[in-house]
Amino acid sequence: MAEIVVVGQVARDLVLKVEEIPDEGGSTEVLERLELLGGAANQAVGARQLGWSSALVGVVGDDGAGRAVLASAREDGLDVTGVGVRAGGTTALYVDVVESGGVRRLLEHVPEDVLLTPADVRAAEPVLSAARAVLVELRQPGDAVRDAMGAAARGGALVLVDGHPEDSRVRDAVLSSATVVRADDAEAAALAGRELDDVRDAVAAARDLVSRGPAIVALAVGSEGNVVAWDGGHAVLPLLGGAPVDPTGGGDAFVVGLVTALLRGADPETAGWEASAAAALTVGRLGGRPELDADRVAAVAQAGRREAARPS
Amino acid sequence: MAEIVVVGQVARDLVLKVEEIPDEGGSTEVLERLELLGGAANQAVGARQLGWSSALVGVVGDDGAGRAVLASAREDGLDVTGVGVRAGGTTALYVDVVESGGVRRLLEHVPEDVLLTPADVRAAEPVLSAARAVLVELRQPGDAVRDAMGAAARGGALVLVDGHPEDSRVRDAVLSSATVVRADDAEAAALAGRELDDVRDAVAAARDLVSRGPAIVALAVGSEGNVVAWDGGHAVLPLLGGAPVDPTGGGDAFVVGLVTALLRGADPETAGWEASAAAALTVGRLGGRPELDADRVAAVAQAGRREAARPS
Repeated sequence: MAEIVVVGQVARDLVLKVEEIPDEGGSTEVLERLELLGGAANQAVGARQLGWSSALVGVVGDDGAGRAVLASAREDGLDVTGVGVRAGGTTALYVDVVESGGVRRLLEHVPEDVLLTPADVRAAEPVLSAARAVLVELRQPGDAVRDAMGAAARGGALVLVDGHPEDSRVRDAVLSSATVVRADDAEAAALAGRELDDVRDAVAAARDLVSRGPAIVALAVGSEGNVVAWDGGHAVLPLLGGAPVDPTGGGDAFVVGLVTALLRGADPETAGWEASAAAALTVGRLGGRPELDADRVAAVAQAGRREAARPS
Repeated sequence: MAEIVVVGQVARDLVLKVEEIPDEGGSTEVLERLELLGGAANQAVGARQLGWSSALVGVVGDDGAGRAVLASAREDGLDVTGVGVRAGGTTALYVDVVESGGVRRLLEHVPEDVLLTPADVRAAEPVLSAARAVLVELRQPGDAVRDAMGAAARGGALVLVDGHPEDSRVRDAVLSSATVVRADDAEAAALAGRELDDVRDAVAAARDLVSRGPAIVALAVGSEGNVVAWDGGHAVLPLLGGAPVDPTGGGDAFVVGLVTALLRGADPETAGWEASAAAALTVGRLGGRPELDADRVAAVAQAGRREAARPS
């Protein structure tokens, strides 16, 4: 059984690199095109690259795209026994349009019929209950999210939730039962219930969220990097690496770096540096697919930490 | 053997309808997604819908997309014996992003290895030489275009060329041997060698092009519609129908309406009205795939012509 299980949208990623997005009515040449296994699978692939067995829980359609993403997932060594194939369903598609300067626009097609249901979660119960860590994408429907978190907790797994739930009742349940909460900029504001203006504000919001249940809260703060808070402390982690080629997948890689470090017994601050390193190693490439390596993650994390500790 | 043969890029069309294109770094939900046989095939499909047997000459990759578009083409009743499957090639993809207001942006990925070569044209010679009309997309490489036009002419076919060739030497050969030349707004300016400011300007350019060889020249003039010129006359054809939902495929349908009318023996002006009707019936729907019907094309063309003849 897999050590790390990712619950979320299993999708096809179509990455299109263009010089510049065309004007209204215009057209442009695509300079580079990638078609990849995407969505939540990027976290599972990253975990696998860092040496952990991993599995997916989600739903695809019974279409050509669904068959292609399942075949890719198997090639990547992922356990897909927890992925449902919806009869008549259309596999989700994320179109990632990236301009040469690194600016990204995301067009997301997630048909309702390939969202996770409680029945899908029940079918995946063996996978969920055997995991050491379960990563749950909160954009899935609230009832399925709660059931997946419940199954993970009964098995004694570390439960990381990613994003923020649309439904406020789900939010309270999530905060009280998750081990780790991770949110990007927009999601962090939604979780906090207010705009977060700067790092200080984000630290206060993260500490407040910790007081409501989770052991660790990690919030993105735009170009300032990330804030990680835990009971009794916090750390501010700058973005590592150079200018991003494509920000897609940075958040997913951050989550993978964080969780794998915590599973190894790292303290939250060390885990935060490894998370930042994993994100940096992903946004330097086109498309959200990670290409992680435990030694490189550790090296980039240590270099970043030393640099930050140096008196300026 | 097919009566109408279309020579051009055989591609997959991915149509994404969104409320609005996202800002830099942003994301948006795709409201509707279509994945279709596209590119030059839209002309062949339209001809088929109007009751003519039709065939494709082009190249796809030996990938999943290539297999999918060939299967769609066969389902549409097209002869694909003239379509080459390039080993290791990547099938072309046209991504058509349409905002709710009908504004379109086109992202075109045409890998070099799936462009037409003289060898591909030779392999398709039986299809080309048996045709009554051959429609050639001028964006294909010049040597393949010339060979395809030559094979069509030897078989006695009406030869329609669509667009404008990049290579100026090809342009002269094209003008001297094509029966019909069709160009959209941008292509018309390139063919004429100058900006065309208004309908009067476009009429002059079309008449000048007729004097260089083709029997009929049809140029698009933005929201003014189209101009059709022939030896001794010309007609100005307004856009028919309501506001377009998606302009994609309008030019392809215009070509099909024009050629099928000419094959039936219609005069150029009547053919122009049918071309305008076919375009109107296509741009009222999302995606470039036509849904033509000979009776509706005739009815819309006649109504448009009567309306234009009425004293204002």
